[in-house]
Amino acid sequence: MTTASRPTLVIGNKNYSSWSLRPWLLLRQHGVEFDEVRLPLDTPEFYATIGKYSPTGRVPVLIDGELVVWDSLAILEYSSERWLDGAGWPQQRAARALARAVSAEMHSGFQNLRTQCPMDCVRRSTDPVSAEVQRDIERIGVLWRDCRARHGAGGPFLFGGFSIADAMYAPVALRIISYGIEVGPVERGYIDALLALPALREWLSDADAEQRAAKRDSR
Amino acid sequence: MTTASRPTLVIGNKNYSSWSLRPWLLLRQHGVEFDEVRLPLDTPEFYATIGKYSPTGRVPVLIDGELVVWDSLAILEYSSERWLDGAGWPQQRAARALARAVSAEMHSGFQNLRTQCPMDCVRRSTDPVSAEVQRDIERIGVLWRDCRARHGAGGPFLFGGFSIADAMYAPVALRIISYGIEVGPVERGYIDALLALPALREWLSDADAEQRAAKRDSR
Ligand SMILES: N[C@@H](CCC(=O)N[C@@H](CS)C(=O)NCC(=O)O)C(=O)O
Ligand SMILES: N[C@@H](CCC(=O)N[C@@H](CS)C(=O)NCC(=O)O)C(=O)O
Repeated sequence: MTTASRPTLVIGNKNYSSWSLRPWLLLRQHGVEFDEVRLPLDTPEFYATIGKYSPTGRVPVLIDGELVVWDSLAILEYSSERWLDGAGWPQQRAARALARAVSAEMHSGFQNLRTQCPMDCVRRSTDPVSAEVQRDIERIGVLWRDCRARHGAGGPFLFGGFSIADAMYAPVALRIISYGIEVGPVERGYIDALLALPALREWLSDADAEQRAAKRDSR
Repeated sequence: MTTASRPTLVIGNKNYSSWSLRPWLLLRQHGVEFDEVRLPLDTPEFYATIGKYSPTGRVPVLIDGELVVWDSLAILEYSSERWLDGAGWPQQRAARALARAVSAEMHSGFQNLRTQCPMDCVRRSTDPVSAEVQRDIERIGVLWRDCRARHGAGGPFLFGGFSIADAMYAPVALRIISYGIEVGPVERGYIDALLALPALREWLSDADAEQRAAKRDSR
C-alpha cells in the first residue's frame, strides 16, 4: 500500500468523540492502516475545517480516494466490505442480523445516556445517575447478556470474536466506568474484555495525553 | 413457501408509523411475502402486545422463524441478505457506501423534521414550517440532488433503481407533501417517482382506510 492509497479517518477529540471511536477502533484493531485527522470539537478550528471533509459537518468521516463516507455506522459497514472481507460482522446470518439490530439500536437510541453521560474518557465520578439513564443501562445489560448467552461462546465479546457490535458499544463501556455505574458480572467481564483490546488502550492513552496537553495549555 | 415459513412484520399504524413503512416498502416492492401484524401506536393494545414481539417495545420488528430482528435499518439489511441476494443496496461498492451513509444519516438525524412534522399520510396543511425544519429539508435536498447527479442515471431513484436508501427517505417525501413544503424540480421528480411505486400506493391507500375507520369509530 502506498501512502497515497491509505484512507483518512477524520475524527474529533479522542477524549470526547464517541462516534469517532467506533470506526477508529474497528480499523485499528484489525490493523487497517489509515491516516488520522483529529479536529477538536466545539472549536473555531473544527467549524473552519470540517466542511472540507464532511457533508454533514460531523465526525467521523472516512476518505478513501475519491469516496467520502460519513456516519459511523456507514463507515463501519464500508470498512468491513472494503478491508475485512465482511469479517466486521459475525459470519453466521442470524448472529449478523442480531449484531446489526443491537448496533442500530445504539445508533439511534439511548438518548438519555448519550446526553446526560457524554463520553469523557479520563473522567471518574460516582454521582448517582438519573432514573432514565439507569433504564438505558438496564436495557443495555439485557442486550449484552442476551448476545453473550446466545452467540458469545467463541470469545469474550458480544458475538464471541470482536465485531462491529463491540465497536458500537465500546463508548458505553467507557461511560459506565467514567460515571461509576454499577453493572452485573457478565457486563463487567465484557467491559474488561473491551478494555484489554490493544486498540482501545491506545485510544485511551491518546485521550489521556490530549487532556493533559489541554490542561497545560489552559494554565 | 409454506405459510409457516413466511416471515411476520410487526408494524404500527400505516398513517403514522414512519419507521414501519421503511422495511414494509422494501419487502412489498420486491414481492417478498410476509404476514403483517398491525398494532396501533399509543394505545393500551400496543403496550399490552408489543412486548411479545419486540425487545425494545418499538416497531417495526421482523420475525423470521426463530429469529427476531428489530430496528428498521437492521431489518432492511437482513431482508436484503435473506431474500434479495443483496439487491436492496446498489451493486457498485462506492454507490453502496453512499447509500448506506445517507440511510444512516436518516436513521440518526433530522430530529427537527421528525419531531415537528411527524408522518401523517392523510394530512394536508400549508402552515409554514420552522427554520430548523427548513434546514433539515435543505440538507435533504442537497443529499437527494447529489445522489441523483452521481448515481441516478439508471432510473428515477436516488441510486437509479429502487434501493434501501429510497425506503429510508420515502417517509420524508410523504412529509413534504403533507406539510406543503416547497422543494426544487429534482426533489419533486424524485418524490413523484416514489409516489408511483405500487407498494407505496398500497400503503397510502391502507393509511387512508385506517383513518376513515378511525373517524367512523370516534363518531
Ligand atoms: N450519526 C452520526 C453522529 C455523528 C456526531 O454526532 N458526531 C459528533 C461528535 S461525536 C459531532 O461531529 N459533533 C459536532 C457538531 O455537531 O458540531 C454518526 O454515527 O457518525
Ligand atoms: N430506531 C428505530 C425507531 C423505531 C420507533 O421509534 N418506532 C416508533 C413508531 S414509528 C415506536 O415504536 N414507538 C412506540 C413507542 O416508542 O412506544 C427503528 O429504526 O426502527
